[in-house]
Amino acid sequence: MQDNPLIIEVRCNESTMRGANPHLPYSAEEIVREAERSHDAGAAMIHWHGRDAVTGAPDNSVELYRETHAGIRAATDLITKPTLGYISQSGVEDRVKHVRALADDPRLRFDAVPVDFGSMNIDTWLPAEKRFEPGDGVYVNTRNDIAAVLGVFRELDTFVTTVCWDVGQIRTALCYREMGLAPTTTLWEFVFTGDSRPSSAGTNVHALNAMIAEIPPGEPWQLMCYGGDVLPLAALAIVLGGHVSIGLGDHDYARFGTPHNGELVERVVQLADTLGRPVASPAQARELLGMPALPPA
Amino acid sequence: MQDNPLIIEVRCNESTMRGANPHLPYSAEEIVREAERSHDAGAAMIHWHGRDAVTGAPDNSVELYRETHAGIRAATDLITKPTLGYISQSGVEDRVKHVRALADDPRLRFDAVPVDFGSMNIDTWLPAEKRFEPGDGVYVNTRNDIAAVLGVFRELDTFVTTVCWDVGQIRTALCYREMGLAPTTTLWEFVFTGDSRPSSAGTNVHALNAMIAEIPPGEPWQLMCYGGDVLPLAALAIVLGGHVSIGLGDHDYARFGTPHNGELVERVVQLADTLGRPVASPAQARELLGMPALPPA
Repeated sequence: MQDNPLIIEVRCNESTMRGANPHLPYSAEEIVREAERSHDAGAAMIHWHGRDAVTGAPDNSVELYRETHAGIRAATDLITKPTLGYISQSGVEDRVKHVRALADDPRLRFDAVPVDFGSMNIDTWLPAEKRFEPGDGVYVNTRNDIAAVLGVFRELDTFVTTVCWDVGQIRTALCYREMGLAPTTTLWEFVFTGDSRPSSAGTNVHALNAMIAEIPPGEPWQLMCYGGDVLPLAALAIVLGGHVSIGLGDHDYARFGTPHNGELVERVVQLADTLGRPVASPAQARELLGMPALPPA
Repeated sequence: MQDNPLIIEVRCNESTMRGANPHLPYSAEEIVREAERSHDAGAAMIHWHGRDAVTGAPDNSVELYRETHAGIRAATDLITKPTLGYISQSGVEDRVKHVRALADDPRLRFDAVPVDFGSMNIDTWLPAEKRFEPGDGVYVNTRNDIAAVLGVFRELDTFVTTVCWDVGQIRTALCYREMGLAPTTTLWEFVFTGDSRPSSAGTNVHALNAMIAEIPPGEPWQLMCYGGDVLPLAALAIVLGGHVSIGLGDHDYARFGTPHNGELVERVVQLADTLGRPVASPAQARELLGMPALPPA
């Protein structure tokens, strides 16, 4: 495992509300603080969503992404991968506008962006009430829209991670490679989901094997667990040569009290240490993924 | 394998156009002919779509379903499972109208109906042209719509097969059980897809294992391959205790010339014979699935 050190990504805030844990970051300053803690704990990459500093509501403004990104860059050398914006946004250009706006600045352009390769129902399951909320939540990514988004990132020469919620989305992504739109240098992101989000593969080794079997051999992959505890899956990924994404944005990890994102990263680092796998620094992770080095400040 | 004989379903015409093979049935008469051939070859169940007799266009009229069903009933004791109608139809009542219309007639009520448990992109991949056609095809089944459809079939006491295109849809179906809407007596249908329809799990044992791992132990499951050759998967299903669906509606099987549906069923019967698994008659299949016997004519 020495030649394949573990890349740990922190998914710090997604669209989760703060609730009982004050460490869920909303503001640029809070995100930068969590970035720094996660970096110091061993993360190589960060994913975040722009949020209103007070209410936590989605805020996908270019200026907020610029401010947050500048703060992360000043504090760490993390690989940066913001969201593409929200489902509520309309149209391809609106989803990519922050990526486009910062693309010409060598220090402030984002290192990577995540692209989802399909559509699925995304309501939350409320087991106590035995109902889905809201009940009509469909995350629609038509194939034409995916093609358009990929076209923009090809034009901007932006590193794209290939986000797949099931095996069919992997197969779809490989079609986009044949079209010359999806990159052959990528990080595959397998989205597993917890019980509150039964939208995707279950959290077991069979589902993971099905995903691994479908990607081209030798390409790097990472897993996450949206709406659930990623740590059991993380152990599988560490042993099977994959990479791990963890964070308060996906799950509250209340079994550890009110952890901040850095503590979650530290759990993964400990796990890797126990299992005998070294952890990649941001610079090593860039090299592993075939990304350019971060330009000096 | 003696106590778990193989249930073979024929999927005779789906929405495939006739093309080079004249045996793809459109009219009620043609569907009944294929039903009879498939029954005689060893099928226990039939799935079909109403089609215009001349053009092959979707025709979901109650009268056409009544005529076709009466013909199948007169010729065979197959378990009958028509489609719920087309994506192009709007609204729950329009999708279930034929099932509702025939529900009070003990001989003409349908034995079973298939319910899909999620949404996904469904365009066709054209490898030579390297594009998706049409490009914006999203098969939307919101969770509220699924609940409404299941409510109707509960009211009509209709046997529901649980159609899942990926592991997440299995998990979703289990939520509907907790809601009291999805039946606990069911046949799980795993939808695999061929290269022309990269919308679903790949056709390998890993994806199959992932599906099997998620359903409650001991419940019956069946697989199909939409847009691809099911026979390699069929061999896995036969050996692993599952059931098999095959037909010209899913794939042209041109490697066998211009087969009719009965010949495809016969291939599965031969495979089962070689692998040492007996084939279920329609009456045995009803018993295996916990369905009532077919009332006498």
